[in-house]
Amino acid sequence: MTRTVGEFLFDCLKQEGVDDIFGVPGDFNFSLLDTLEDYEDMNFIDNRNELNAGYAADAYSQVKGMAAMITTFGVGELSASNAVAGAYSENIPLIHIAGSPDLGDQKEQKNVHHTLMDGNFEVFRHMYEHITAYAVKVTADNAGTEIPKAIHIAKEKKKPVYMDIPFDQVTKPVGEIKTPESAKMTDTSLMDEVFLKASDQLGSAENAVMLIDFNTVRYGLEIEVQALAEKLNVPVVQMLQGKSGFDEQHPQYIGMYGGAFGDDHVRKTVEEADCIIAVGMLWSDFNLAKYTADLKTDKMIIIHPYSTLVADEVFENVYAADILKSLMDVDYREEGAVQQLPSIYDDIAGEADEALTADSYYPRFQDMLKEDDILVVDTGTLSYGMSQVKLPKNSMFLSHGSWQSIGYGTPAALGAAVAAPDRRVLLFVGEGAFQFTVQELSAIIDKGYKPIIFLLNNQGYTIERYLNTEHPYADYNDIPAWDYMTLADGLAASKEVFKARARTNGELDEAIKHAEQFDGAGLIELVVTDPMDAPLYLHKLREYEKED
Amino acid sequence: MTRTVGEFLFDCLKQEGVDDIFGVPGDFNFSLLDTLEDYEDMNFIDNRNELNAGYAADAYSQVKGMAAMITTFGVGELSASNAVAGAYSENIPLIHIAGSPDLGDQKEQKNVHHTLMDGNFEVFRHMYEHITAYAVKVTADNAGTEIPKAIHIAKEKKKPVYMDIPFDQVTKPVGEIKTPESAKMTDTSLMDEVFLKASDQLGSAENAVMLIDFNTVRYGLEIEVQALAEKLNVPVVQMLQGKSGFDEQHPQYIGMYGGAFGDDHVRKTVEEADCIIAVGMLWSDFNLAKYTADLKTDKMIIIHPYSTLVADEVFENVYAADILKSLMDVDYREEGAVQQLPSIYDDIAGEADEALTADSYYPRFQDMLKEDDILVVDTGTLSYGMSQVKLPKNSMFLSHGSWQSIGYGTPAALGAAVAAPDRRVLLFVGEGAFQFTVQELSAIIDKGYKPIIFLLNNQGYTIERYLNTEHPYADYNDIPAWDYMTLADGLAASKEVFKARARTNGELDEAIKHAEQFDGAGLIELVVTDPMDAPLYLHKLREYEKED
Repeated sequence: MTRTVGEFLFDCLKQEGVDDIFGVPGDFNFSLLDTLEDYEDMNFIDNRNELNAGYAADAYSQVKGMAAMITTFGVGELSASNAVAGAYSENIPLIHIAGSPDLGDQKEQKNVHHTLMDGNFEVFRHMYEHITAYAVKVTADNAGTEIPKAIHIAKEKKKPVYMDIPFDQVTKPVGEIKTPESAKMTDTSLMDEVFLKASDQLGSAENAVMLIDFNTVRYGLEIEVQALAEKLNVPVVQMLQGKSGFDEQHPQYIGMYGGAFGDDHVRKTVEEADCIIAVGMLWSDFNLAKYTADLKTDKMIIIHPYSTLVADEVFENVYAADILKSLMDVDYREEGAVQQLPSIYDDIAGEADEALTADSYYPRFQDMLKEDDILVVDTGTLSYGMSQVKLPKNSMFLSHGSWQSIGYGTPAALGAAVAAPDRRVLLFVGEGAFQFTVQELSAIIDKGYKPIIFLLNNQGYTIERYLNTEHPYADYNDIPAWDYMTLADGLAASKEVFKARARTNGELDEAIKHAEQFDGAGLIELVVTDPMDAPLYLHKLREYEKED
Repeated sequence: MTRTVGEFLFDCLKQEGVDDIFGVPGDFNFSLLDTLEDYEDMNFIDNRNELNAGYAADAYSQVKGMAAMITTFGVGELSASNAVAGAYSENIPLIHIAGSPDLGDQKEQKNVHHTLMDGNFEVFRHMYEHITAYAVKVTADNAGTEIPKAIHIAKEKKKPVYMDIPFDQVTKPVGEIKTPESAKMTDTSLMDEVFLKASDQLGSAENAVMLIDFNTVRYGLEIEVQALAEKLNVPVVQMLQGKSGFDEQHPQYIGMYGGAFGDDHVRKTVEEADCIIAVGMLWSDFNLAKYTADLKTDKMIIIHPYSTLVADEVFENVYAADILKSLMDVDYREEGAVQQLPSIYDDIAGEADEALTADSYYPRFQDMLKEDDILVVDTGTLSYGMSQVKLPKNSMFLSHGSWQSIGYGTPAALGAAVAAPDRRVLLFVGEGAFQFTVQELSAIIDKGYKPIIFLLNNQGYTIERYLNTEHPYADYNDIPAWDYMTLADGLAASKEVFKARARTNGELDEAIKHAEQFDGAGLIELVVTDPMDAPLYLHKLREYEKED
């Protein structure tokens, strides 16, 4: 039985654990969607627009390791470009498939709709070359090679890839199939040297610490990291973008490192350590707390996915998992239990009849979390505040510390729910961010998913007020007032939703209780009247920016 | 008084008639927005997301001749890329200004947020090179040259241009200012030859016709076209993408030419003419009615903006306005009045208590139109149906026949209303399209604009059902049910909106009457129960596709 190009594509995706494909129909992808509709055990998740599809696919990939999205030529694929660039920035594998016009029309350079009217059918693929690890036009002739190759690259490089598949090629028989060569292995000749240098570094240390970051999560190094931490019995710290890379309930975990803006005890522990083992480190402005993070590379062992640095000496082609395992033999172990100190949101603050403030709602968020929860956190004050909330075991924290595209959260909550229908999804989103992609709430509810959504209504783009220290009250940071409770009724005509508006701590407590009891999606609007309400982390950041 | 880069930018835009700038704030464009907030007589129109900003700017430019939009680096600018590519496809000048990180950070290749975390700050500009006529990084050093140059190119080529302006460059003094050279003129040595060939062509003709298309509108050739038509006294026809290029109430106007799908009398007149003067012609699939339009170029005089073809002979560097004026001296004039026949929607059809169908609501739309109305028509069955509606004098018809990005309409209605606050704006949008960009309804209402919105709720992507003749009832063409009346209350918390849901012709008549009397925005939902309800044009197109 010869497979068609479309069937072969879905076979390959299925093999990577992709059971659901996001996207939006359009006339140039009908042949793909028709093939998908007839394909066993693969669902099409129709999004309300393509940007939302991209965000949803991104979150799905974070949960399941791979995701795919189908858009239509030109109009559809470009609408998704922000999300795809985001997946690039955030190291997330994502297969973007754009249905394009018939190959014959392309060769004839016809002025079909959704083109620039210049006969150029390569322009959008060329745009995508800039924000993907691979971009290719798939035809029946090359599909057997190019589809596995593209998926392989996405998986190896943790990046999005792009395939443009002409309408008429989808139903043609796939040509010869060629599986890509497996990945290169660690350069074993270097392993001993890395081990010796690292041993030296650790051997002369007395108070080492492990710093868990970004690529620990992206490359799935959590198990190796925890094993090494337990072997060394050192304090473990997470960077902001490494959140959910280490079990925050673990007795060795001491908190988040946020340079001048985070916890002082953690800061002291990290900056005064005489050896720092950093896994999956990303040197970005957000992660380094506006470069206030003071990390001396000469006393660090920095383990990247495919290279390691020991005291500034670089070793290429050594794989993180191999290095982490080899370090299990290092002769270093700290004595006694790691000193634990309370973290900022451990204690519930604020009386029941008092107005909601960052000091009162973040502890309540932390308090309501459960094991296995998936937290989706949109960009804004919440992404700073939630980074300081202590997570339960086996929870996941989905947030974009690098790309920071406001509006990511709501579609991402859909993607997470589709990926893990048996886990609880919690969305934390500011009302400014919510407005960007609000229509995806409809998809969440209509498909029967049951997240609890915390909608922080702080009267405008509060994060922008914080970042623009000179003009915090500029008009452009105001946004229109919406009635979110009514809006949810409008968007969710087919399903009942639990809705509550909370102004006080007591109202929030009640709302959480009822949302947890309700069998369906919940929308809790937190009405915060101080437009400069924000977590301590941001207060410190703003003071720092003012002095700057 | 030295001007800053930001002030100079707004000076240049002001000179082109730009009084309002669309966009979304983000931390890399604060310096632009702060300058704008202090700038006299220039408003910032904050959109609910960047795609919407782009669509709104597109419509604004169609009304005022030029538009500008400000987004933020990476995340913001990419979200707008679909709209900018649309402006390219549709020949619409649009200045896209992206605020980027400090020039110093760019030179140091810092991993700041909103980047791909690879130190590359040129990547988004390189993407924009594909969908703009010019893309440039503006600094204090080059602003005096590059800003006027970019705007000049947009104006001359009727295309979008892109400027990335680093945050810190905006407030620096602008360097030396250099005005671009004025455009090249018509090659006068060719004028006589074109005139002679065209005279010959017309001289041997007995039943000529004028065909008004796309670039007549884009290059503002309406006056010259009408003068020539009146001189020749020939029947005048519009192509689908030329709508509003000629006064449809003019005694010489006979209707729209839609190949095999449009009016038969018009088709006969065009296809049997022995000379066709086509102005601003675009040879696209939509415009040529799936290539059923049968136009013989050997009997055509095709006047493009910068070139003319007479019986397939090409003359470059002759300008449309010059040619149109010179043809006033041609010795050709038809006798008597042009024969007028009723057009398809001239008579109101359907009883008051009957359900709404395409045959009943299109005549009602035509009937309620007034002089000076601006019609915004989103992609879908409506763009086919509305193309056959006869427009009143001085009306404008904004629709994207080339790019056809679904969801364009709602933000475009905002852009039109901002551009022409004293004209009535009517939006015709299907519920599928409406869901893509629904949040912009909030901006329309919140800012106090008063369009009447006809929301055609036909239970899914009806246009897609039409185009996918093999699987018209595919699940993917279903969309979630929304309660649009309730939704409007949720989105428009600050203002009262006239809302009505019409299922019968009588209910639609009532709703139109009340919406016209109401002092505010109106939302009329037409609930059409037949998911295959569509105008005659589409019925014919579908039959043709089935046979194909």
